[in-house]
Amino acid sequence: MKQKGILVVVSGFSGAGKGTLMKRLLETYNERYSLSISATTRAPRAGEEHGREYFFLSKDQFQQMIREEALIEYACYVENYYGTPKSYVLEQMEAGRDVILEIEIQGALKVKERFPDTLLLFVTPPTAGELENRLRGRGTETEEVIHNRLKRAVEEAELMDQYDYILVNDDLDVCVQKMHELIQAQHLRTDGNRELIARIRRELRNL
Amino acid sequence: MKQKGILVVVSGFSGAGKGTLMKRLLETYNERYSLSISATTRAPRAGEEHGREYFFLSKDQFQQMIREEALIEYACYVENYYGTPKSYVLEQMEAGRDVILEIEIQGALKVKERFPDTLLLFVTPPTAGELENRLRGRGTETEEVIHNRLKRAVEEAELMDQYDYILVNDDLDVCVQKMHELIQAQHLRTDGNRELIARIRRELRNL
Repeated sequence: MKQKGILVVVSGFSGAGKGTLMKRLLETYNERYSLSISATTRAPRAGEEHGREYFFLSKDQFQQMIREEALIEYACYVENYYGTPKSYVLEQMEAGRDVILEIEIQGALKVKERFPDTLLLFVTPPTAGELENRLRGRGTETEEVIHNRLKRAVEEAELMDQYDYILVNDDLDVCVQKMHELIQAQHLRTDGNRELIARIRRELRNL
Repeated sequence: MKQKGILVVVSGFSGAGKGTLMKRLLETYNERYSLSISATTRAPRAGEEHGREYFFLSKDQFQQMIREEALIEYACYVENYYGTPKSYVLEQMEAGRDVILEIEIQGALKVKERFPDTLLLFVTPPTAGELENRLRGRGTETEEVIHNRLKRAVEEAELMDQYDYILVNDDLDVCVQKMHELIQAQHLRTDGNRELIARIRRELRNL
């Protein structure tokens, strides 16, 4: 019997390197993971593709998905909806693939409430100074944007202890490897192995 | 700040290959793990050494340890005491080493009750038939001993779902690797990283 996939939520400070980390994890272990693609009502930016970065929906389409309970979680930021379509996630898990959701803390906690077996991972740079360096190092953000991201990081840090595991992203390769091992270890959880246990009990009684 | 070690209890059916597994894990990752040595009042068998297989104690000595609460758990089997001395376990954990206890299910549950962060691992062969083959394959046990071990396995299987993780010992090398990754992943648990979280919060506020 093939084991079902695990639902994994990855969150972290803006500048923690989540994007690169996810990209590398999915490239390296392509056969194991599926990345969930969010739906949004915001307009696509240059270079963004429907079905790759996001599913770009109209407000009507999005509200219909809400009514049909077709979203695992959703939220409204700056007058735009963002949400996680349910069908893709459940399909992939059923097929034995671990599904990764890269979403914000509020969404993460909603997912955990609805699916208690979800694995919540929080990615952080080793120090706050390093976070600031990375944000500045991009060289593409205004001082105001950097300031806002750091202010937001202060708020996010207050909730990071709601996550199951904390991943320090110091060395990218090490962090990808740790994340992979951590997720795979969850497949050994007793809760996910009820059928194995039942089979061994039955076999032992029949020996 | 060095992180404290983790307490890991490994149990499993007689014949599951725990002994070889532990030996290999400790040889391969010698710098990370310490194996807890049990105390017992039973007589040493040929080749057994005090402080290697067991600490061999008199009944008086053992009862004194009970009175002084110097044991994490203890039990009485076939008129002999067996128990886990506390001081060594705590010292090693304090030094940042993960401590492995290879004990029976009843003891495992007592340890978990007393130290809720303990990681409980249950090792099983892939099938009950394989368990029987391994027990017979040793060629050293009487039919009665094999029968009793299998009977006991039936009882133990009823409690295996009390463990946190189930490790199927099919290929020894794979199983050692999985066990290592599983234990190391526990170091990323939020609960074990309170100081890291507090430091990052402090740093962020002071930026």
